[in-house]
Amino acid sequence: MTPTPTKADRFSFGLWTIGWTGRDPFGDATRQPLDAVEAVHRLNELGAYGITFHDNDLIPFDATTGERDAQIARFRQAVDETGLAVPMITTNLFTHPVFKDGGFTSNDRSVRRFALRKVLRNVELAAELGAETYVVWGGREGSEYDSAKDVQAALERYREAMNTLTEFVTDRGYPIRFAIEPKPNEPRGDILLPTLGHAMAFITELDQPDLVGINPEVGHEQMAGLNYAHGVAQALWQGKLFHIDLNSQRGIKFDQDLVFGHGDLMNAFSLVDLLEFGGPNGGPSYTGPRHFDYKPSRTESYDGVWDSVKANMSMYLMLKERATSFRNDPEVQQALLDAKVAELSEPTLNPGEGYAELMKDASSFEDYDADAAGAQGYGFVRLNQLALEHLLGAR
Amino acid sequence: MTPTPTKADRFSFGLWTIGWTGRDPFGDATRQPLDAVEAVHRLNELGAYGITFHDNDLIPFDATTGERDAQIARFRQAVDETGLAVPMITTNLFTHPVFKDGGFTSNDRSVRRFALRKVLRNVELAAELGAETYVVWGGREGSEYDSAKDVQAALERYREAMNTLTEFVTDRGYPIRFAIEPKPNEPRGDILLPTLGHAMAFITELDQPDLVGINPEVGHEQMAGLNYAHGVAQALWQGKLFHIDLNSQRGIKFDQDLVFGHGDLMNAFSLVDLLEFGGPNGGPSYTGPRHFDYKPSRTESYDGVWDSVKANMSMYLMLKERATSFRNDPEVQQALLDAKVAELSEPTLNPGEGYAELMKDASSFEDYDADAAGAQGYGFVRLNQLALEHLLGAR
Amino acid sequence: MTPTPTKADRFSFGLWTIGWTGRDPFGDATRQPLDAVEAVHRLNELGAYGITFHDNDLIPFDATTGERDAQIARFRQAVDETGLAVPMITTNLFTHPVFKDGGFTSNDRSVRRFALRKVLRNVELAAELGAETYVVWGGREGSEYDSAKDVQAALERYREAMNTLTEFVTDRGYPIRFAIEPKPNEPRGDILLPTLGHAMAFITELDQPDLVGINPEVGHEQMAGLNYAHGVAQALWQGKLFHIDLNSQRGIKFDQDLVFGHGDLMNAFSLVDLLEFGGPNGGPSYTGPRHFDYKPSRTESYDGVWDSVKANMSMYLMLKERATSFRNDPEVQQALLDAKVAELSEPTLNPGEGYAELMKDASSFEDYDADAAGAQGYGFVRLNQLALEHLLGAR
Amino acid sequence: MTPTPTKADRFSFGLWTIGWTGRDPFGDATRQPLDAVEAVHRLNELGAYGITFHDNDLIPFDATTGERDAQIARFRQAVDETGLAVPMITTNLFTHPVFKDGGFTSNDRSVRRFALRKVLRNVELAAELGAETYVVWGGREGSEYDSAKDVQAALERYREAMNTLTEFVTDRGYPIRFAIEPKPNEPRGDILLPTLGHAMAFITELDQPDLVGINPEVGHEQMAGLNYAHGVAQALWQGKLFHIDLNSQRGIKFDQDLVFGHGDLMNAFSLVDLLEFGGPNGGPSYTGPRHFDYKPSRTESYDGVWDSVKANMSMYLMLKERATSFRNDPEVQQALLDAKVAELSEPTLNPGEGYAELMKDASSFEDYDADAAGAQGYGFVRLNQLALEHLLGAR
Repeated sequence: MTPTPTKADRFSFGLWTIGWTGRDPFGDATRQPLDAVEAVHRLNELGAYGITFHDNDLIPFDATTGERDAQIARFRQAVDETGLAVPMITTNLFTHPVFKDGGFTSNDRSVRRFALRKVLRNVELAAELGAETYVVWGGREGSEYDSAKDVQAALERYREAMNTLTEFVTDRGYPIRFAIEPKPNEPRGDILLPTLGHAMAFITELDQPDLVGINPEVGHEQMAGLNYAHGVAQALWQGKLFHIDLNSQRGIKFDQDLVFGHGDLMNAFSLVDLLEFGGPNGGPSYTGPRHFDYKPSRTESYDGVWDSVKANMSMYLMLKERATSFRNDPEVQQALLDAKVAELSEPTLNPGEGYAELMKDASSFEDYDADAAGAQGYGFVRLNQLALEHLLGAR
Repeated sequence: MTPTPTKADRFSFGLWTIGWTGRDPFGDATRQPLDAVEAVHRLNELGAYGITFHDNDLIPFDATTGERDAQIARFRQAVDETGLAVPMITTNLFTHPVFKDGGFTSNDRSVRRFALRKVLRNVELAAELGAETYVVWGGREGSEYDSAKDVQAALERYREAMNTLTEFVTDRGYPIRFAIEPKPNEPRGDILLPTLGHAMAFITELDQPDLVGINPEVGHEQMAGLNYAHGVAQALWQGKLFHIDLNSQRGIKFDQDLVFGHGDLMNAFSLVDLLEFGGPNGGPSYTGPRHFDYKPSRTESYDGVWDSVKANMSMYLMLKERATSFRNDPEVQQALLDAKVAELSEPTLNPGEGYAELMKDASSFEDYDADAAGAQGYGFVRLNQLALEHLLGAR
Repeated sequence: MTPTPTKADRFSFGLWTIGWTGRDPFGDATRQPLDAVEAVHRLNELGAYGITFHDNDLIPFDATTGERDAQIARFRQAVDETGLAVPMITTNLFTHPVFKDGGFTSNDRSVRRFALRKVLRNVELAAELGAETYVVWGGREGSEYDSAKDVQAALERYREAMNTLTEFVTDRGYPIRFAIEPKPNEPRGDILLPTLGHAMAFITELDQPDLVGINPEVGHEQMAGLNYAHGVAQALWQGKLFHIDLNSQRGIKFDQDLVFGHGDLMNAFSLVDLLEFGGPNGGPSYTGPRHFDYKPSRTESYDGVWDSVKANMSMYLMLKERATSFRNDPEVQQALLDAKVAELSEPTLNPGEGYAELMKDASSFEDYDADAAGAQGYGFVRLNQLALEHLLGAR
Repeated sequence: MTPTPTKADRFSFGLWTIGWTGRDPFGDATRQPLDAVEAVHRLNELGAYGITFHDNDLIPFDATTGERDAQIARFRQAVDETGLAVPMITTNLFTHPVFKDGGFTSNDRSVRRFALRKVLRNVELAAELGAETYVVWGGREGSEYDSAKDVQAALERYREAMNTLTEFVTDRGYPIRFAIEPKPNEPRGDILLPTLGHAMAFITELDQPDLVGINPEVGHEQMAGLNYAHGVAQALWQGKLFHIDLNSQRGIKFDQDLVFGHGDLMNAFSLVDLLEFGGPNGGPSYTGPRHFDYKPSRTESYDGVWDSVKANMSMYLMLKERATSFRNDPEVQQALLDAKVAELSEPTLNPGEGYAELMKDASSFEDYDADAAGAQGYGFVRLNQLALEHLLGAR
């Protein structure tokens, strides 16, 4: 009864997600490491279309060139055998102690140079493997103490790094775009570019802003108490949703990385509706991979890991079914009309009207009955209840 | 012992702040309304340099033109007598029921037209009174239910409104700039442009982005758990800090609007340091009014209101003193050096160096001793402790 | 397709909920006041079994005795005509300015005496109307500033008040129990007894603790980021769930009072499962009224108000259906077994075993294979996915 | 100028605090392990009076009995040489995978038995070393998914474990009391007994409640947005503050464990005032160790670790100085009078008065001028400003 995924659904998973061994701030690993080749085969069997990774998910930090090449070769072979895509690659600038004060914005200049080299090297690999998107998560770019970080200088260095990277892919002719992944905090007390808004604002200061978008993660925005579907809508509106990280979070707390739909279910429904169909009146929707960036709970063995892989995809597909039935229900369509949802797509000004003409339209102000307009009911509660009934499969 | 403000300090207050009568979601007003003329005289006596207001702080929503003119005339006279500036004006698009689903982005088109007219009319008044900044707080632009608001359409309407306004001031030759005030929620469940980042990103989509900046409020950003001083630094870096709303908040909860410094004291210290002196290595600082947007607690009579006015200004000046002593302390300067804070202002690349040259520098990667760099201590805790000792007046 | 409520479902509503006119911190009322008699008739028609109220929902603060009596008489007649129950009554100790620093714990002793009198008078009315539960929400008992409130003294006064009230009902022979309603903040910066845990701890210090329990509200606990179903389970376990306030909240922010199920849907499902069926292995469940304490959104006319009444009850009944199907599904039962959920009901010690015997059981420690036990998978993700599939009506 | 600690100040530190190597959810250790003997000597030199530990801070999880004894002997010798006290010991029931679903409340009964044995063994060590307090932090007692944990059964098992432990110390005649440390979440999605209120309520259900109190941690309560000083005041009032964990947190987010005073400075001031002097009118204050449970930031080398040790103690002593000057300032004393802070210590009822007499006092109700009482100003803002001026060393 629950839907089965196919490659056409474009589900992808990070190697670090299914490969998370369960080490957390208070506990040791509860699972053995997962071999990347097995990960590829398993994901393929379960219906995923793609796999993504950080350099050090695949290649140890201190690997020799030979070890690196061998590991990449093994991985490529598995990918080739299965036909799995590698739509996105990213860099680990957070695990090794060298990055404890950041990568691109470490106070130590030599660390910044090292970080940039590490990314450049891995972008070459991304190009080789045909990745279209390169994610930049600056998890260590930030501070615990306000005096310890000159934020303006840090943003200047962030810009320098991003400009170098876009110049690099442009010169090389790589068909790669960058996607910045925002997060408000953890592991740093405060992280720079804490929300998708801050990241999109930052991007406008870059040399080649068209090559840089965002990769917002459900839980990261919700850690700031923000409405994720709203944020994604703004990103779509600004043409900046280059990639997406699906998972769940239960409120403002540490980063939980739960299975998609296992947190704020209603917002997950709204999100899938938005990604699949655009706004209620259309508008841009999302065409990239549906990428899961989650952690199988530490209580699970590998059976639970594979169950969680299935759960992510199944949940997305169920929500897509619910969104479809919601959109097709005539009662919903009437409720949307009553709530004037589509009326918001009509320009406020008449065709050809400017402020001057508006100021001459007495019906808009001098003769306007604000009290009557204020007394109307929008029927939003009923509309939401209808959405919930579809979500619950009750209609 | 506590410092006394002068007009040179450029402290301004909203008429609605000292005029708040204490009505809250669970209680009736505890103070009588304050006459605007008395407000002007009191603020002047206490050392403020400016006063700001929403149209309906001064003029009732349903005032006739005659009543409006009379009220403006009384206010102007008071302002003229005292020499108080009116550096900022804003519109109330939230109190009357007509705005219950928003102003610029109400689902009802007639409401949007009415809202735009209300703002246009008040911008004319702003120009008359010599205000340089026009604040736009879209407190009702948002939703409680995801299906009830097409966010992409709403942003399109928001853009239409802002474009109309900038065209208006440009055509009229008004030397006015707009400042959007973000807020994550309250009174709506989720408000559009929830953080200063989202607002700055939005601005880049406007016809005349140079005329629009932001007016971030301490408490609003902290309601999303964000570091306010970090956010303001990004706004300065992007040249978008057109105005500022100083107050306090004690964590993620309802909007408290406490006296400046009565919430997160350490972040207030960092903020004043930033506004007055720029980043630790310089960088843009803020030259506009220090505007207090707070609410005198509901437990206070008017004596308490005036005490709270004094407390805001005194707190700012005390923090400025502490920041000055912090910057001048040689031990602090050494700790900043040890923490490599200034090193972050040095470009990561050498003069003339690009990615190609960097990739040839073996010292940056192949020969780099990441373990040694990772073992160094930054001394951030000590630096923060020194800052706290200055804050506590202990050094 | 959505279920219809009957009186047997024991749904009750506060008069202040459907009667909320939409005044919020930033806006005026959007609806006309609702007459109490109409409220009674409407609720009855829609399938509710009970109505509850604060004294001042029915009787103006400054009503004369004659006005009070007349209003009570009208209300009683409506209640008698419809057969609606009045299972709970409470006092308004928050709207009038006299309570701005609290009722039972105001710094001003005369206010405390007045508050106690106001409650005593209203308890008499509760007894007259046959209410079994008297709710005490101390929304103004708290502070914004730590120095302004001696918390230990305040708790002493709270105790004095509660002891006086329990003595009163005991002496009078009223079959009334008190239920304290916790809330972390809003309208005060910090409210005393901020969570159900604090309230239950406080109750143990009272003269007649058996007469006092709690009335936890979904949104109030979630405003502190707490798991509401967990908290209610602790209250059931301690025999203290005297009454319950159902509504919804979308995360840590201002008090939203949304329709039940319109916030954290998964936790609402768990809650209904708990209230209806007890723990997964049984354990106490709740037998009192299912009371809705919510606010119909300010965007709604009275049509929307009545729709929201229906939505609350319908949502509860749908979740009850989903919980029933979840419990009856053999696959779920197997998953619960696999997850050892019922094993937690088995005592840790064997019958007759104490620490001494345990310390002699080498299999429990010396010979225990902790690594093997740590490697087992609990299958929690799959169990949760099954719960979600039932919630979504997908099984 | 900053104060120097002595043993009389009773500062103690957890071995796991200074010994934290900086491993976090996204990064590897940045510091080498610290030998326990060095830790003892260093703390002694820096002015601490005590050291505390979890069993596995000192003794590896899989140590043989011989290794265990040797390690204890080395530690005892260091303690004896320095005269450092060991006032508290606790158990690690969270690091090893066996505890991934909890210790006392794991769904797996064999894990529960193992956990109980582990604690019993370590309580014996606590008795040997003269510890007066045994802390119980159930960091893994909880769940991510509501269906996966029967909370009522879990509390029953928690009770069983605590009853066994109190029986054990009673039978053995150990002068040890237990202190439960609450935390709302992290590492589990939701932890049982999430706040100090929940823990104190739970304790009343135990066989020997007098032997069990709480060990509230600053950051843990603040992770739920609660006022820590308020919570500690309730604990003092209920006689349950058996131990305390001092540190800092910057808002609702992951557990930061910052140096005391490096987070919410104003609340830290209020806390020290409360611990040292009781309520503003007296009332119980705290006499136990001032225990720091924090993490030296991951950016620091061991120099920074020792600086952070000094910072904790120095901050406490500075705040104590500020609290003393606050209490002694005649202007503050007048402001406290104006705010009627001490009036809250006066019983609400007159000597000998009960509800019956109160109901006859017309001045308390029938003749009471509520409007006049509501119009008074409490002067709370000014009082808070005075507190801040003392905190800033400005008076």
